[in-house]
Amino acid sequence: MLGVCYYPEHWPKERWKEDAQRMRALGLTYVRIGEFAWALLEPEPGQLAWDWLDEAIATLAGEGLKVVLGTPTATPPKWLVDRHPEILPVDREGRRRRFGGRRHYCFSSPVYREETRRIVSLLAERYGRHPGVVGFQTDNEYGCHGTVRCYCPRCRAAFQGWLRERYGEVEALNRAWGTVFWSQRYRDFAEVELPHLTVAEANPSHLLDYYRFASDQVRAYNRLQVEILRAFAPGKFVTHNFMGFFTDLDPFALAEDLDFASWDSYPLGLTDLMPLSQEERVRYARTGHPDVAAFHHDLYRAVGRGRFWVMEQQPGPVNWAPHNPSPAPGMVRLWTWEALAHGAEVVSYFRWRQVPFAQEQMHAGLHRPDGLPDQGFFEVKRVAEELKGLSLPPSARAPVALVYDPEAAWVFEIQPQGAEWSYLGLVYLFYTTLRRLGLDVDIVPPGAPLEGYALVLVPSLPIVREAALNAFREAKGIVLLGPRSGSKTEAFQIPENLPPGPLQALLPLKVVRVESLPPGLEEVAEGALGRFALGLWREWVESPLAPLLAFGDGRGALFREGRYLYLAAWPSPELLGRLVLDLASEAGLKPLPLPEGLRLRRRGRWVFAFNYGPAPAQAPAPEGARFLLGGPRIPPYDLALWEEA
Amino acid sequence: MLGVCYYPEHWPKERWKEDAQRMRALGLTYVRIGEFAWALLEPEPGQLAWDWLDEAIATLAGEGLKVVLGTPTATPPKWLVDRHPEILPVDREGRRRRFGGRRHYCFSSPVYREETRRIVSLLAERYGRHPGVVGFQTDNEYGCHGTVRCYCPRCRAAFQGWLRERYGEVEALNRAWGTVFWSQRYRDFAEVELPHLTVAEANPSHLLDYYRFASDQVRAYNRLQVEILRAFAPGKFVTHNFMGFFTDLDPFALAEDLDFASWDSYPLGLTDLMPLSQEERVRYARTGHPDVAAFHHDLYRAVGRGRFWVMEQQPGPVNWAPHNPSPAPGMVRLWTWEALAHGAEVVSYFRWRQVPFAQEQMHAGLHRPDGLPDQGFFEVKRVAEELKGLSLPPSARAPVALVYDPEAAWVFEIQPQGAEWSYLGLVYLFYTTLRRLGLDVDIVPPGAPLEGYALVLVPSLPIVREAALNAFREAKGIVLLGPRSGSKTEAFQIPENLPPGPLQALLPLKVVRVESLPPGLEEVAEGALGRFALGLWREWVESPLAPLLAFGDGRGALFREGRYLYLAAWPSPELLGRLVLDLASEAGLKPLPLPEGLRLRRRGRWVFAFNYGPAPAQAPAPEGARFLLGGPRIPPYDLALWEEA
Amino acid sequence: MLGVCYYPEHWPKERWKEDAQRMRALGLTYVRIGEFAWALLEPEPGQLAWDWLDEAIATLAGEGLKVVLGTPTATPPKWLVDRHPEILPVDREGRRRRFGGRRHYCFSSPVYREETRRIVSLLAERYGRHPGVVGFQTDNEYGCHGTVRCYCPRCRAAFQGWLRERYGEVEALNRAWGTVFWSQRYRDFAEVELPHLTVAEANPSHLLDYYRFASDQVRAYNRLQVEILRAFAPGKFVTHNFMGFFTDLDPFALAEDLDFASWDSYPLGLTDLMPLSQEERVRYARTGHPDVAAFHHDLYRAVGRGRFWVMEQQPGPVNWAPHNPSPAPGMVRLWTWEALAHGAEVVSYFRWRQVPFAQEQMHAGLHRPDGLPDQGFFEVKRVAEELKGLSLPPSARAPVALVYDPEAAWVFEIQPQGAEWSYLGLVYLFYTTLRRLGLDVDIVPPGAPLEGYALVLVPSLPIVREAALNAFREAKGIVLLGPRSGSKTEAFQIPENLPPGPLQALLPLKVVRVESLPPGLEEVAEGALGRFALGLWREWVESPLAPLLAFGDGRGALFREGRYLYLAAWPSPELLGRLVLDLASEAGLKPLPLPEGLRLRRRGRWVFAFNYGPAPAQAPAPEGARFLLGGPRIPPYDLALWEEA
Repeated sequence: MLGVCYYPEHWPKERWKEDAQRMRALGLTYVRIGEFAWALLEPEPGQLAWDWLDEAIATLAGEGLKVVLGTPTATPPKWLVDRHPEILPVDREGRRRRFGGRRHYCFSSPVYREETRRIVSLLAERYGRHPGVVGFQTDNEYGCHGTVRCYCPRCRAAFQGWLRERYGEVEALNRAWGTVFWSQRYRDFAEVELPHLTVAEANPSHLLDYYRFASDQVRAYNRLQVEILRAFAPGKFVTHNFMGFFTDLDPFALAEDLDFASWDSYPLGLTDLMPLSQEERVRYARTGHPDVAAFHHDLYRAVGRGRFWVMEQQPGPVNWAPHNPSPAPGMVRLWTWEALAHGAEVVSYFRWRQVPFAQEQMHAGLHRPDGLPDQGFFEVKRVAEELKGLSLPPSARAPVALVYDPEAAWVFEIQPQGAEWSYLGLVYLFYTTLRRLGLDVDIVPPGAPLEGYALVLVPSLPIVREAALNAFREAKGIVLLGPRSGSKTEAFQIPENLPPGPLQALLPLKVVRVESLPPGLEEVAEGALGRFALGLWREWVESPLAPLLAFGDGRGALFREGRYLYLAAWPSPELLGRLVLDLASEAGLKPLPLPEGLRLRRRGRWVFAFNYGPAPAQAPAPEGARFLLGGPRIPPYDLALWEEA
Repeated sequence: MLGVCYYPEHWPKERWKEDAQRMRALGLTYVRIGEFAWALLEPEPGQLAWDWLDEAIATLAGEGLKVVLGTPTATPPKWLVDRHPEILPVDREGRRRRFGGRRHYCFSSPVYREETRRIVSLLAERYGRHPGVVGFQTDNEYGCHGTVRCYCPRCRAAFQGWLRERYGEVEALNRAWGTVFWSQRYRDFAEVELPHLTVAEANPSHLLDYYRFASDQVRAYNRLQVEILRAFAPGKFVTHNFMGFFTDLDPFALAEDLDFASWDSYPLGLTDLMPLSQEERVRYARTGHPDVAAFHHDLYRAVGRGRFWVMEQQPGPVNWAPHNPSPAPGMVRLWTWEALAHGAEVVSYFRWRQVPFAQEQMHAGLHRPDGLPDQGFFEVKRVAEELKGLSLPPSARAPVALVYDPEAAWVFEIQPQGAEWSYLGLVYLFYTTLRRLGLDVDIVPPGAPLEGYALVLVPSLPIVREAALNAFREAKGIVLLGPRSGSKTEAFQIPENLPPGPLQALLPLKVVRVESLPPGLEEVAEGALGRFALGLWREWVESPLAPLLAFGDGRGALFREGRYLYLAAWPSPELLGRLVLDLASEAGLKPLPLPEGLRLRRRGRWVFAFNYGPAPAQAPAPEGARFLLGGPRIPPYDLALWEEA
Repeated sequence: MLGVCYYPEHWPKERWKEDAQRMRALGLTYVRIGEFAWALLEPEPGQLAWDWLDEAIATLAGEGLKVVLGTPTATPPKWLVDRHPEILPVDREGRRRRFGGRRHYCFSSPVYREETRRIVSLLAERYGRHPGVVGFQTDNEYGCHGTVRCYCPRCRAAFQGWLRERYGEVEALNRAWGTVFWSQRYRDFAEVELPHLTVAEANPSHLLDYYRFASDQVRAYNRLQVEILRAFAPGKFVTHNFMGFFTDLDPFALAEDLDFASWDSYPLGLTDLMPLSQEERVRYARTGHPDVAAFHHDLYRAVGRGRFWVMEQQPGPVNWAPHNPSPAPGMVRLWTWEALAHGAEVVSYFRWRQVPFAQEQMHAGLHRPDGLPDQGFFEVKRVAEELKGLSLPPSARAPVALVYDPEAAWVFEIQPQGAEWSYLGLVYLFYTTLRRLGLDVDIVPPGAPLEGYALVLVPSLPIVREAALNAFREAKGIVLLGPRSGSKTEAFQIPENLPPGPLQALLPLKVVRVESLPPGLEEVAEGALGRFALGLWREWVESPLAPLLAFGDGRGALFREGRYLYLAAWPSPELLGRLVLDLASEAGLKPLPLPEGLRLRRRGRWVFAFNYGPAPAQAPAPEGARFLLGGPRIPPYDLALWEEA
């Protein structure tokens, strides 16, 4: 189903009814409102102004739209900040940040938690049982603008409490962090500081615990809101809109308190921020990289335990990326169908109408600032019409699992060891390799059951907990483990038995040395799979196993024991493409190398094919397939949908 | 006429007379002194030491030199800073900056304004009626080192007052800024902060008002000085020396209080700071880009309402650019003549003698540190001799106007929307296009009368006020409007009728979408003018007009209605060169595409041709022209001057 | 002899004896311990815990190892920092830095000096006469992490005292700094601030004095430790471990208080930080640049007045460079022999065993984290065996002196005048030129006697004091002076007689102008030596001498008067290679242009040849030479040693 983000407070009341009617006419079902409206709801401290929101909801609901109401906590009003300046966050440089943007609060602030409790309670009390309000969004894009990690005194105190909780005794912390090194021993939790502005680099265990704590604080803050909403709004769903390429936060943990996950899909801006060559950046400037939205759909479907929305879908050029081109004609429709193909329950466009003032005035909407329909509107209209005639089958489990671990991003952010090492980069390389072979993917967190998957890819999992190990053990399919897997204990130490630590239970091998390579330095690995020049990262492995691929010096690059494989190097796209092709085939899947720009995704027995390229593409449909959308020849920026026999 | 900057306080008194005699002998008329001498004039608080300055002025005037006296406020002494540390500015990062350089004061500081009043009054009282002192320079290079915008508490209070003045009621501010967005509503002007260290980007209207305020503060500060000088020094001129490629300040507004404008011309340093290719940077390393000085001459002639000086002319290598090469032999003379050709009343060299100590010890002068003449000296000598035989005719109005708007620089600095968008870059592209066609240019601020111009170029004018619109209406010539013109209201909002807002009165068109393109992404526009690959910026226009140039998707890139043209894209040099050539021809001008490195400029009926290139060039003089300087073959780094029939 | 760095506190006591035995068995003589152990030695304020260290020393000494004991002052414990937060340094941005890394103290802090006196006295009292302890290392890597220069109030006060000491009267300071410029005059030393956060650039004399002061503070701090150690540990040596490519500190001055110098040799990390082309970076990624260790051996041999150790030798991949590759097989041995060839008395590996926790967990040791021998171990074993059979002759004076001046690095850091000017870059260019000609080099500080050298190279010596001038006068060999030599007085002013100032006593020439050139701008200089394109820096010289090389405009690039040469430009590698080849030949040396990657070094009559390249190389040994190690064909990453007749 389709929805839209709407800000009645930005427009004259006289326009609301017309807008609501047009939404309905366009075929929209949901409308999200209210998530930045605190100063409008409480213009003076303690003086609530509900009238406008009452009327807005009544108007929207009156036209049959289902309202998703956002809590307004991402934007505390000026009067609140002036009364309690300590709610403002302190950045890594030690500077107290200021009012004037958004997200200007610290998650640890007791005052802000209390104020949150107050405003969310008032809101939930008033609208929690309103028949037109079907659900709530908590806050907005937690962590945006680098706000997960705050360095204020309140955070310091909370972090010390968190550590006390975790370690019990300070000597346990000293052991875990190895504070015997560099005389960093603490005598009491109260001595521990936040890890910033240190003269030399901070202790990595200290950093990792702080990153965990900061993520936990956001979760606790969110739970505070959820509990209020559950109390006042029984039966209504609660969700939150996560972001793309954002790792400061563990979305799996936070979403345990939600009914489903949402995310905000801006394929062009996300692509402009990716480390691409100029050639690729130009090629995908108007379509986004073909896997950027799909990756996040799969990620947030997992985060939402099978359920997710696209809460904000890019409808045209945006304002916040270094470059903001117009999407190629057709892309708004294509992105919508890509989301639906991946199981999105709702795709909601951001936003109904471009606002002519303030920070986001250059962000397109479905309507232009003058209220007339913009390009996106017509593409949405087409999707809405197409949807009418179709009843989408439920999404099935994918044959391939990709293990994604938010904590891994923190580990490698803290200790890249080679300047180009990027966890997200590696994950994306695995993901895109699968997509280019036409394979559907389930992204799963470490420890999730893997029995149902024919193939399990683990780009890297530095910290392997018991649950993850058990899941690998119980997996029935082939498990490919990437470099640096098992390289750290939970305390951020090298395992006593050396990497891959507990994974040695699966494969008899030991990583005895690792090295990062500067750009341009590559070593050739060779074997039955072929000959591949590999750079960036290499490991020295001791193992009784004969490597499947070996470097010139005889050291192995790839090992296999039964259904487990270990990659002892950063794979090139060529190597990974070949390896995954072979493993998928062996696993009984039907990998299909796709031409550049073409991608597939199944939903039940329906197969979608998306053409991100500038030239027509041939749909890889069987002879005589029944096309539900499009046909065998897919025009540029278009799609085809057929039913599998 | 020629002049020089001199620091008697740097040299033994014994040398002063000899220096003065040598200045006179060299043919100099003016000598600027005193602008950093506060600590010398007032070595202890309240104890004035005039003797040395009395004597220096007497010595210089005794040799017939006309003294320009600088007020010494750019360098408050240490004792003053220690007594009033609050005069020190606070930077964007929130750091109070320190004594030890120059310009270490905040324009809003009441204490500093009072101290300024005191020292300038004392100085003006003593020398205002001195016959040897012909005029004053206020302060020195306002805004240098990023000092226009300060973030101290005094600035905050002053900004709130400025807003109160501007908006009257806080709700007017709320409407203008659109504070309904992101709950940024203010209940009182006293709630408004300076726009820095915000967590997300600050509101653009907030930023623009702050930039306007900061520029206004400098103007008010300068006016304080001017009023004192007017009172104590009747009949003496007052000027200020502005800088190149500097946009934090509105020089037009500030100069309303001055008798004429001055600027400090450092072509090599300015060129090193330009975003050129390495090939261009190398080509112009010793000459400066051929339009860099000319552009500023034209700009400051406008700022000075027809009158300007070059107060500081580069005489050799300087110290402050990333690279500081020696000018090609002849360039000091060429630059001087370029300034005179553009109407400079005086060209004054910085400085008489290279000082061997402190921050600028690596900055050349007309003399070496050891007191002997340096290269520049001999070139100045030649100019002085050439000037003797010539009586320059007055400058005439140019046939082409280029509309330049300091506020536009602020708008696009706040909201580039594409990383490569640069207002100065676009203006310079238009300017250099005109110069390469041999056309003289008047730079004019928006709103200035345009009747006399055959051709009016507006690189971009985002905010179109009534006066500017009327000037366009009353223009008799062709008016070319660049992209993003009319795209913002005065309050930094998108106009209700969409861009180009009020300009729709001139051309029936509406910009319904804009997009910025990453480097390498270009779209081809084609039409009678030719075929051009355009990048960086493109607009989608709805118009009944048939475009003169259209992109592959049919959207127009260039529109025309009568004498008005609108460019809906960032022009390539090729497109702009061709378009301006055609428009100038149509306007009855005689554009003449010049070879690389050759430039023309007329002063009355005199035509100057400047050869910035390393090879001889042919002067485009008519058969039998009378040469006043040089001849038909212009050697490298040389010039020719002939009289037009 | 060989040694190792060991941290008994990181490992269970049970392992100590085995480790000690294995050290002995490996052939090690020395073991450095204790330098980060303060929190272990004094777990609570005033409560000393000597037991573990007593036992560790007893165990190591019991196996015959000689213990070098580090003072633990680089890592003050948390309780100390909490009691005296003012010991934390303040950085250039004005931020008080925090506990959590190392080197978190200010050298000027009276409290920290007192605490230092206390802990060092206690340590020295306990172990100063211990027979197993043969010497001490003060602190660790002074200045690492940018800690030489602190901007705290204590430093400000100390700097004012230092200035008072230096100048006596404030007017002397005013004259020396030229504070008449920009009204910077001081009325009292108490007015002087630390030179940071100034609005415009700070006065260069001010900066230079501050850099001198900061270096002096480290020396004074170190002397405090040395005096205690001398008192309590008579007859035991005292050293300090300096760093590579580090210029904030004057090591010559500091080492006057030491018995010999040490340095920490990490060829791969240092190479990764060098400004190399990608091609070079890849070529030397696994060997280090062939001159990077040699340069520092020669430097610290000079700093140690002929005596030096490598206190920390890289044994495998490290953790702190942008890229951390594994050394090519053989390099640990090669590096060791290179050090010994240069006269190192001891080469001590960092570290015995890779520690699995905290900041340096990714830094290899001779053993893996699991305690088994790593690659480096086996190479050390081979060296130890090779050493058994050899008795190294004493190092002789080299035939060539390279004058290296720490103060020059400060001068050019303060005033590069061209963005690419780098003092270390220029010095390294001279050094590598000599090495590629097979010449041994003594690095000497300015003012050191030069009589014994056939050739003296002075890459640049901006400040030429009397002693240095006299040394040049008394030199018997050829003296080549590089650009900007003699360009500044001790007070950082341009000399009255212009550069090269006092050097004009050696060559009749005067630099009347200098220029820095942007990348790509080169001028061709030609003469009997050949034709060379020179960039980056050029000087205009007035001289009665006919230049040996002249630019196209006739200006000289190279001058000679008797045995003195002056280079008036930044030399290209080609020019310098040719010039040094000729001068060395003229001086009676036997320069031998070596193939890429091959290097020589003599020790007495023994000649070492090192092959840093990936292919075998021919040893340039005379027919029938007696090889002590290797043979005429040197395998990759290997060496040969023969005795000269």
